[in-house]
Amino acid sequence: MSLSLGARIKAQVDDWARFSSEEGQLTRTFLSPEHAQVVEAVIAAMTDAGMSARLDAIGNVVGRYEAETPGAPALLTGSHVDTVRDAGPYDGNLGVALPIACIAELHARGKRLPFAVEVIAFGDEEGVRFPTTLSGSHAIAGTFDPAVLTVTDADGVTLKQALRDFGCQPDNIPAEARRRADVNGFIEVHIKQGPVLEREDLPVGIVTAISGASRFRIVVDGMAGHAGTVPMGARQDALAGAAEMVLAIERHAGSNPALVATVGRMTVEPGAINVIPGRADFSLDIRAPENALLRESIAAVQHELRAIAERRQLSVVLEEQYMQEAVTCDPRLTQTLVDSVTRCGHRARRLPSGAGHDAMAVAALCPMAMLFVRCGGGISHNPGETVTAEDVDAAARVFLDFLEALPASKD
Amino acid sequence: MSLSLGARIKAQVDDWARFSSEEGQLTRTFLSPEHAQVVEAVIAAMTDAGMSARLDAIGNVVGRYEAETPGAPALLTGSHVDTVRDAGPYDGNLGVALPIACIAELHARGKRLPFAVEVIAFGDEEGVRFPTTLSGSHAIAGTFDPAVLTVTDADGVTLKQALRDFGCQPDNIPAEARRRADVNGFIEVHIKQGPVLEREDLPVGIVTAISGASRFRIVVDGMAGHAGTVPMGARQDALAGAAEMVLAIERHAGSNPALVATVGRMTVEPGAINVIPGRADFSLDIRAPENALLRESIAAVQHELRAIAERRQLSVVLEEQYMQEAVTCDPRLTQTLVDSVTRCGHRARRLPSGAGHDAMAVAALCPMAMLFVRCGGGISHNPGETVTAEDVDAAARVFLDFLEALPASKD
Repeated sequence: MSLSLGARIKAQVDDWARFSSEEGQLTRTFLSPEHAQVVEAVIAAMTDAGMSARLDAIGNVVGRYEAETPGAPALLTGSHVDTVRDAGPYDGNLGVALPIACIAELHARGKRLPFAVEVIAFGDEEGVRFPTTLSGSHAIAGTFDPAVLTVTDADGVTLKQALRDFGCQPDNIPAEARRRADVNGFIEVHIKQGPVLEREDLPVGIVTAISGASRFRIVVDGMAGHAGTVPMGARQDALAGAAEMVLAIERHAGSNPALVATVGRMTVEPGAINVIPGRADFSLDIRAPENALLRESIAAVQHELRAIAERRQLSVVLEEQYMQEAVTCDPRLTQTLVDSVTRCGHRARRLPSGAGHDAMAVAALCPMAMLFVRCGGGISHNPGETVTAEDVDAAARVFLDFLEALPASKD
Repeated sequence: MSLSLGARIKAQVDDWARFSSEEGQLTRTFLSPEHAQVVEAVIAAMTDAGMSARLDAIGNVVGRYEAETPGAPALLTGSHVDTVRDAGPYDGNLGVALPIACIAELHARGKRLPFAVEVIAFGDEEGVRFPTTLSGSHAIAGTFDPAVLTVTDADGVTLKQALRDFGCQPDNIPAEARRRADVNGFIEVHIKQGPVLEREDLPVGIVTAISGASRFRIVVDGMAGHAGTVPMGARQDALAGAAEMVLAIERHAGSNPALVATVGRMTVEPGAINVIPGRADFSLDIRAPENALLRESIAAVQHELRAIAERRQLSVVLEEQYMQEAVTCDPRLTQTLVDSVTRCGHRARRLPSGAGHDAMAVAALCPMAMLFVRCGGGISHNPGETVTAEDVDAAARVFLDFLEALPASKD
C-alpha cells in the first residue's frame, strides 16, 4: 500500500529536520550552512513537482508552477524554513512541503490551473540570527527596508554580507517585489501553535486575523554590592526589580484572554553568586489580535514597570525593537477556504493566530488567508512539536480543493 | 611633610589595583597572571619591611617577621589579594598592606616582639575562578580537602594544574598546615562592607562573629513554548516561576534584620525573545550570624520555593554547593583588640560580619579576631568602594597598639 499524501508530506518535513547546526536537535538560522542545505532540498522537491525553482535575492526559494496560460497572475503560497533554537520540525516547514506535494499531485495528473502557483520558502521568519524578521516576505511585498541590510549578527556579520556569502545579490532585492497585477492572493498553511484545534478535535482551522506583536529590550539598573553585608533594606537589586516586573507582565497579560506576553531572555550583571545584581537586561514580547488592545497593553505595562523601578530606586529603560500591527485576513479568500474545509467534511472553525507569520507581511501586497493544521498539545517552538499524517492529509485535501475552487480572477 | 602611615598604606593598595585582567577595572582571580603580579609586589613589600617572604604550596604569600627569640610562636594576620569581577581595591588587599606597613614601622624602629608575626596574602577568598573558596586559609588551618584539587575553571583547567602553572607544588599543601603550638592566634583587618560604621561615624569596629553562609544552585524546569500561541493560563514558564522565587527569597530575608539572601546569577533557556522559557537556572546565597537561624531560613526558603513550583506545575531542584557555618570570634583576643581601640581614642563598636573571610577558616586552628575599617557607603564588591587615609591610619594605629599589647603566650 502506498503512503497517503499526508504521510508523504510529513516524511518530507521530517527529512528536512536533518539540516541543523546542532547534533540531536533542530536549529536552523537564516543564511546558515543548514539553511543552504534545506534550500537545495526544497529546490529539488519543487523541480520534482514540475516547478521552476530559484533562490531569490533575499534568500527565499521561489518555485513556480505555470498556469494554463503561461505568465498568468499567480496565487502565492508558502511559509518559512528557518527555525528557532531547539525547534520542532513542522513550524514553517510544513507550509512549504505541503503545497509542493499538492502541486506534484496536479503535475502527476497533468493538470494546470487558470492561475500560476508560486510556492515560496521564506528564510527569515523567526528572527533568531539577526535582529530582524520577515525580511523575505517583506521583499516579496515590496516593503523591505534597505536599512535592515546593515544589521549584524552576534559575530558582527551584516545581513548584506551574509546574503552575499549565501550566494544572493542583495542589490537585486527591490526587483523581487511583486506587482499587484501579477498576484491573485497569498495563502499560508501553518501548524496551529496553540491548543484550540486539539481541544475541539478538528484537523484544521481557518485564521481570521494575525495578532500584532511588539518586542522590547528592557534594562534595569540598580547598584551592585556585597551579598553578605548590604542589609536587605539598603539594596537596589536589579534582578529583584526585574523579577517583580516579570510577574507584573505575566499578571497583566493574564487579565485578558486575547493577550499574551512573554519574557524570553534575561541576563544579570555582574552575574556572580556573591554579588547583588547591578543590572538586569530582559526581553518583552507582547501580542494582541487588535491594535488598540496591543497599544493599551504596552502603555499599561510600561506604566507598571516604571512604578516598580521607582519604588525600588532602580532605573528602567524600555526600548521598542519591533512592532508589527495586527492584520486581518481577506474575507473573500477566507470564504473560499471555509467552503473547501466544509466540502472536505470538517467543521470550519475560525480562530485568530497569536503567532506572527510571513502572511502578515504579504498582506500588504494582496489578499491573504491562512489554514491552520492541528499540532499535538499546541506545542511549538519545542522539540516536542508533533503533527499526525492524518491531519496533514486533511489539510492537503483542503488545499487541493481550494486550488481547484479558486477563480482565475483576483477579485 | 611626609605622608601619614594611613596614606602610605592606602597608596600601596591603590597601586596594587593595577594588577587586573580588565583594562579600566579591577578583576584579579586566583592563580591568574594578575595574581602572579600582585604576589611579586607583596613579596617586595614584605622584604622591604624586614620580613622573609615566600609563595607557599597553595598560592599564599607568607611573610614572617621574626620574634625576639627566633622560632617563637607566631601571631598570624593577613587577608586575600584575589578580587571579584569589577571589584574595589580595598576588599582583602587592605588587610595585607596594613600589617606589612605596621611591621615596616617596627622594623624601622629596630623593634622585635615576643612573638613572630606572619602576614599571609591568601589567594582564594572570592571563589570567582574555581567553584571553591578559602583554599589558602584552609591549607594553613590544616582543613584543606585534597578533593578540591580536581575542580575545574570555566576552561576546564583543574585547580591542581593551575597551581603547578603558577609555580606551586600542590603535593606539598599538607605541609603548609600549622601546628597549633606554633601559632598565637589570627587577626584579620578588613574593610567593613556595610553601612554601620559610617552611620555611627566610627573609623573602626570589632567583629563578634562571622555569619554562616550557604550557597545553592537552583534549577527550575517548565515547558518551552511559542510566545504568541500558548495562552497565559496554559503556560509552564520557568522564568516566571523563578521570578516569583526571587521575590519570595527577598521577602523571607527581609523579615529578619540578621538575614541576607541574594540571587546573583540567573540564566534562562532557550533564551529567545519569542520562546516561553523552559528552564531558569539561578544561584542563592543566604547568610546569618547564627547557625540555627541559617538552618531555619534555608528550610523555610526551600519549602516556599517548592510550593511555588508545585502551584505553577514546574519542577525545582535545589543543590547545596557550599555551606560555611557561622564562626564566633575569640573572646580573649577580641578583648585585647577592644582595649587597643579604646586606648586609641575610639568607641569600641562590636558588630557581626555578614561577609565571609579567611578568618573563618583559620578559626579552626587558633583563636581569631577581626578589625573592621569603615568604607564609604558600606559599598564593596563594586568599583565605587572607598576608604579614607584617616580611617586607615586609625586602623593601623590600633593594629600597632594591639601588636605591642599582645602577650607572648597564646593563652
